[in-house]
Amino acid sequence: MAATAPTAPPLTWSRRHLTGIEPLSAEEARLLLAKARGYHEVSTRRAVPLCKDLHGKVVVNLFYEDSTRTRASFRLAASRLSADVLDMSASGSSVSKGETLIDTARNIEAMGVDTIVCRHSQSGAAQQLAEHVACAVVNAGDGQHEHPTQALLDAFTIAQRLDRLDTFDLTGLRVAIVGDIAHSRVARSNLHLLTKLGAGVVLVGPPTLVPGALARLPGVDVTVAHDLDAVLPEVDVINMLRVQFERIAGPAFPSQREYTALYGLTARRMQRARPGLVVMHPGPMNRGLEIESAVADGPNAVILQQVANGLAIRMAALALVTQP
Amino acid sequence: MAATAPTAPPLTWSRRHLTGIEPLSAEEARLLLAKARGYHEVSTRRAVPLCKDLHGKVVVNLFYEDSTRTRASFRLAASRLSADVLDMSASGSSVSKGETLIDTARNIEAMGVDTIVCRHSQSGAAQQLAEHVACAVVNAGDGQHEHPTQALLDAFTIAQRLDRLDTFDLTGLRVAIVGDIAHSRVARSNLHLLTKLGAGVVLVGPPTLVPGALARLPGVDVTVAHDLDAVLPEVDVINMLRVQFERIAGPAFPSQREYTALYGLTARRMQRARPGLVVMHPGPMNRGLEIESAVADGPNAVILQQVANGLAIRMAALALVTQP
Amino acid sequence: MAATAPTAPPLTWSRRHLTGIEPLSAEEARLLLAKARGYHEVSTRRAVPLCKDLHGKVVVNLFYEDSTRTRASFRLAASRLSADVLDMSASGSSVSKGETLIDTARNIEAMGVDTIVCRHSQSGAAQQLAEHVACAVVNAGDGQHEHPTQALLDAFTIAQRLDRLDTFDLTGLRVAIVGDIAHSRVARSNLHLLTKLGAGVVLVGPPTLVPGALARLPGVDVTVAHDLDAVLPEVDVINMLRVQFERIAGPAFPSQREYTALYGLTARRMQRARPGLVVMHPGPMNRGLEIESAVADGPNAVILQQVANGLAIRMAALALVTQP
Repeated sequence: MAATAPTAPPLTWSRRHLTGIEPLSAEEARLLLAKARGYHEVSTRRAVPLCKDLHGKVVVNLFYEDSTRTRASFRLAASRLSADVLDMSASGSSVSKGETLIDTARNIEAMGVDTIVCRHSQSGAAQQLAEHVACAVVNAGDGQHEHPTQALLDAFTIAQRLDRLDTFDLTGLRVAIVGDIAHSRVARSNLHLLTKLGAGVVLVGPPTLVPGALARLPGVDVTVAHDLDAVLPEVDVINMLRVQFERIAGPAFPSQREYTALYGLTARRMQRARPGLVVMHPGPMNRGLEIESAVADGPNAVILQQVANGLAIRMAALALVTQP
Repeated sequence: MAATAPTAPPLTWSRRHLTGIEPLSAEEARLLLAKARGYHEVSTRRAVPLCKDLHGKVVVNLFYEDSTRTRASFRLAASRLSADVLDMSASGSSVSKGETLIDTARNIEAMGVDTIVCRHSQSGAAQQLAEHVACAVVNAGDGQHEHPTQALLDAFTIAQRLDRLDTFDLTGLRVAIVGDIAHSRVARSNLHLLTKLGAGVVLVGPPTLVPGALARLPGVDVTVAHDLDAVLPEVDVINMLRVQFERIAGPAFPSQREYTALYGLTARRMQRARPGLVVMHPGPMNRGLEIESAVADGPNAVILQQVANGLAIRMAALALVTQP
Repeated sequence: MAATAPTAPPLTWSRRHLTGIEPLSAEEARLLLAKARGYHEVSTRRAVPLCKDLHGKVVVNLFYEDSTRTRASFRLAASRLSADVLDMSASGSSVSKGETLIDTARNIEAMGVDTIVCRHSQSGAAQQLAEHVACAVVNAGDGQHEHPTQALLDAFTIAQRLDRLDTFDLTGLRVAIVGDIAHSRVARSNLHLLTKLGAGVVLVGPPTLVPGALARLPGVDVTVAHDLDAVLPEVDVINMLRVQFERIAGPAFPSQREYTALYGLTARRMQRARPGLVVMHPGPMNRGLEIESAVADGPNAVILQQVANGLAIRMAALALVTQP
């Protein structure tokens, strides 16, 4: 670490919830990332004795949408902190009996649960929960709104790869986010976090899928582009969003082949990129569609590091919001 | 606590199973409630170090019906006692391969499991299990028969609200249970437990859903009524059963609106009640059908306390039946 | 144990994976069985303090096919070793999003998982995983290929019943495996393990379901028969495979009644057997189809002991492959 950190983190984290990146100050985001840096060794070395920071605490994974990696990552993060974790999913729950989200959450809270990790198809679900329960809430993805821990692990991975783990200051970096920006909570959270940390962002995709309004957000260094080949030589990092198969059939996506031709990250296209380009993907990948296997498995890709860092990020988020 | 408890609990609990309230003596029921009182602090304070009463024991949640709260409550209760808990459900199990309930349970037992918590759509399933396995069995709801831990947490909550936690003696209290009594295991278990503890019970609902035969049970203070407005001023506690949507279409339920008009607990109807009326609901609630939100969230409701007390009750049940 | 063991086990176990019985040497199989013998007491006594051999390790149950007992057995085995266990199933996973098995496994590995227990409908899936991840892989059944821990627990149970736990040398024993041999991974793994341990095997079933080619495997004492009544007096052990209902309708199975008449293990047929015949079944049983209840619950059956021994076998497999 630098002898004098350029930004002194606040002494204490005072937020009860992590519902999104947008409400965080840059300092709060850096505090979260620094906390994850501290857990990074714990999460990968898994030394005995285990970390006991949430010993005796109870975390519930309340998932209304399917997810392998996010659910597993939160579960392992909570376990690594010695918390007790309980998985709840929409199938096999009161949801099918017509109970409201708020009633379900209040019931979970009444069982002595400390923290609810919530994934929901409705934008704003996490915030709504946070307003109605006294326990902590962490947003694990809500509709097309935000997915804050994904953005945090992405930023952590960029900082790790480009040697900026000491300050998490991403000033001077240019990051392309490519794909269906309009419907992506990952894109939204990344946009907020990367600009808070000083990076510039360029959103790339077909005009139908990249709302121009995003480029007119006040006080934010963001531009919109539709030609990936023109953008590629200019950026330090590229984040390839997953193509949602269920949306391909619509007018926005004429065909898979055309999408790949225009916006797929192929080995051939990589020749236009800077040598050290950092290639990211939030997973699960559609190999051969938005990314070619040679790129996904190549030296520029940090896709598995993203997954690994997700554990440290989620440990940090859970530890900070769960009150002692 | 009183200087001299009116009923001395038996020194030891000798039952291997908790299949229902009906087979319990009043003393056994009080012992269970007193054990829960002891766990109440553990379940809510969650002090470190954790309670180790079932350390090294294995509890299996064998659920053949969906349930959020009961399954989660048993799971958290077992974890709070430091037991290892394993969830098994009908989907993803040998059940779909045609294995009998008894064979499934014997196999679970052979894996070194100490206690099976069973929910099943068939009345008598828990008792059948108890007769065929050597490990302990706790009934988490069997068909239209019993749901003993629900009745115990209801009684605990009444005693807590009305300051009778020292003896769990409910003598002099009058409790209304409202709704589809005929098909409700919650109603049956409550009827048995409340009368064992000294309370009088009035069963309220449409004639098609409240069998008059229940009012002729020998030695039990129970009456049947069909006019909620007439009953309301006379009772200290009201337990609003959940309307089962799947039964609404039948001849017993002409319409939701009519049900609410006759048997829904509305704010307007609450004006007829005693000021301190204790309002209960086993959940999940159909807001606006059997209970109005103003009542469910009002000062008389103890619905979330029921959920919270469920943890202590299930800790007590698991601790008592699981042999050391 | 004998004063001098006939076969000295190798000092260390060097395999990173357990993908099948076929690749194991007889010595390796005996080492695994001996390790299980050591855990047997731990798995059944469950003394406090618990065994900490995998404390801090993470095991993932990656199941692409339904299974009650195998999943539960692995889970309990991992817990008994103090590992952290995470269940993942095909429903609710990235699988439905089109991700490849290898990508899913690499992601799981990136989360710091030490060992993946995999069940998959495709033969060779476990081996494929083992070639692409650095963490350990245990095959919990892959298509019609192998189910190594089932064969190991079967051999352990035979050795236990016939007093050969000291060496696991099954020389001189004759074991019949009865049923749909052609499609059974249990039969394949048993065939390999039993012959490695010195036993002779006879495969019994309708000609359509018992490939004659198996009887011509080089260096292996295996024969094929179609008349169970003729085989029964000659064998020490009989392993009744489960009839797969989904295959009954085909030309191989004219009817359930005919199957039972020819290949069901009935009380009447048992009169032809040696008095001490060891009766096995991998479960779940179709009572009245491949085995009659009087036999399944009779003194010759070791079916529940198989289940109980499965815990020790899976503890041994997990402990040996998971690196310290």
